[in-house]
Amino acid sequence: MTGGYPLLVADLIGVAVFAASGASAGVVKRLDLFGVAFVGFVAALGGGILRDLAIGAVPPLAFGDWRYAVTAVIASVAVFWLHPTLNRVRRTVLLLDAAGLGLFTATGTLKALDAGVPAVGACLLGMLTAIGGGVARDLLTGEIPVVLRREIYAVIALGGAVLVTLSHKLGFTGLVPLVSAAALMTGVRLIALYRRWSAPVAAP
Amino acid sequence: MTGGYPLLVADLIGVAVFAASGASAGVVKRLDLFGVAFVGFVAALGGGILRDLAIGAVPPLAFGDWRYAVTAVIASVAVFWLHPTLNRVRRTVLLLDAAGLGLFTATGTLKALDAGVPAVGACLLGMLTAIGGGVARDLLTGEIPVVLRREIYAVIALGGAVLVTLSHKLGFTGLVPLVSAAALMTGVRLIALYRRWSAPVAAP
Amino acid sequence: MTGGYPLLVADLIGVAVFAASGASAGVVKRLDLFGVAFVGFVAALGGGILRDLAIGAVPPLAFGDWRYAVTAVIASVAVFWLHPTLNRVRRTVLLLDAAGLGLFTATGTLKALDAGVPAVGACLLGMLTAIGGGVARDLLTGEIPVVLRREIYAVIALGGAVLVTLSHKLGFTGLVPLVSAAALMTGVRLIALYRRWSAPVAAP
Repeated sequence: MTGGYPLLVADLIGVAVFAASGASAGVVKRLDLFGVAFVGFVAALGGGILRDLAIGAVPPLAFGDWRYAVTAVIASVAVFWLHPTLNRVRRTVLLLDAAGLGLFTATGTLKALDAGVPAVGACLLGMLTAIGGGVARDLLTGEIPVVLRREIYAVIALGGAVLVTLSHKLGFTGLVPLVSAAALMTGVRLIALYRRWSAPVAAP
Repeated sequence: MTGGYPLLVADLIGVAVFAASGASAGVVKRLDLFGVAFVGFVAALGGGILRDLAIGAVPPLAFGDWRYAVTAVIASVAVFWLHPTLNRVRRTVLLLDAAGLGLFTATGTLKALDAGVPAVGACLLGMLTAIGGGVARDLLTGEIPVVLRREIYAVIALGGAVLVTLSHKLGFTGLVPLVSAAALMTGVRLIALYRRWSAPVAAP
Repeated sequence: MTGGYPLLVADLIGVAVFAASGASAGVVKRLDLFGVAFVGFVAALGGGILRDLAIGAVPPLAFGDWRYAVTAVIASVAVFWLHPTLNRVRRTVLLLDAAGLGLFTATGTLKALDAGVPAVGACLLGMLTAIGGGVARDLLTGEIPVVLRREIYAVIALGGAVLVTLSHKLGFTGLVPLVSAAALMTGVRLIALYRRWSAPVAAP
């Protein structure tokens, strides 16, 4: 469904980037090699597992296609060994994370729509595909999820999911609208990072 | 299945109340607007999502019927703006929360029985429908779930679920036994609050 | 599927031991009687619930067969009352926990393979059956999961799951390979405990 080889490659890049974010959090918390790989796996694939369970796609892709799990584990182990040099590539990581945000949202929303989930639910599941892994990563490492506290991240996913759903309902299918929506989300995310946009917090 | 329009309205009141409890916890933890809405959504619909996954009802109602998600988000955003005045209506909130406890347990148990789950499992799923969202709310905000620590809350749900299951096995169906059981649970919960009942803690 | 009466008994021993580990954690955190039973239930059955959801076996065994839930609750309540004397039987508990690790991994892997999950996914689900409950126990009691931080535990499960999968692909079925693999994992776990093996942590 995800559109064949080009999208599989893009999907796996998203998996690798999100796994690296989870593995970094694990290294910071002094987890052992297994713990780092486990948090990396959950950060990369937790959102997709939740989506697949919710649309009845069993076994979830994370267990049904070995390339997803293996990519997540390789990326996590690489971070375990290479993390002292990661600060130097921090900009690249943020760029790839923004790409993962856009892509996971777009493919997650489309999978939910294809499974017959109504529009509102498909938008929510698309967003959860993108942010679910990060939420699980933060819970496993004893943190209140960062996506709930600051920065414009999940809202970009939600907006992008609405766009994907609208274009799907209008009859646009295939790679072009999917990639356009993913690129738009990635671009807005990069602008939000650059301008340090953040969501409001309630008055005390 | 839940009995048409009157029960849909009652169900959505439960969703709104549980969302408000989640949103309040999010405001206290200084989450941003998205975080408050997210915790509200999970508090209101997390228990039902778990139940629906366990009985194979996909997509879960939270994603399949937009009125549930929209109600949760509206209630959460209202709490985000209005929370300084919420202390004044604290008694109303506790009353509505007790109503949500009774109703979510009763409908959750019946849905599990209707899906063919045996008696013991249906009681557990009915209870989880009522307390699951609160457990997830506390985990997301970095707390040990309050329902595990003090107060008589989950035990009332479990007792009510047993009652619903017994009356179902005896052939009583329809709105009357469901509403009676929900009202009984709500009443016992209010008495437990008023008398400050609590469960025993192990000897040190 | 799990091989009839002998394996049901062995399965329930695993449930009782894992429930006791969860209940102990709940007593330490001063949870009330309900909280102790709830954490015991989740520690014993959480991993299996996740596996059953992932392979589409609904309702999960924890809700579909009352003996699992009742065993978990009885073991938890026993720990609630008897915990002051538990330190004296600590060695027995560690031995039984090692047995639970081997058995849950072996049966979890086989259930996933029987459900048509490919090899890599079946190994992951077998491991998650064994460690998932402990991860949930630690999250509910406000701890970073111990399995991610130290000791050789999950890696033994993963190695055992690979062995079970290989022997299954080679055509060995029935009780003998299953029990052999479970016994091997239990033995390695006991050696790891005795020799205090631990996994590496990343260089600072």
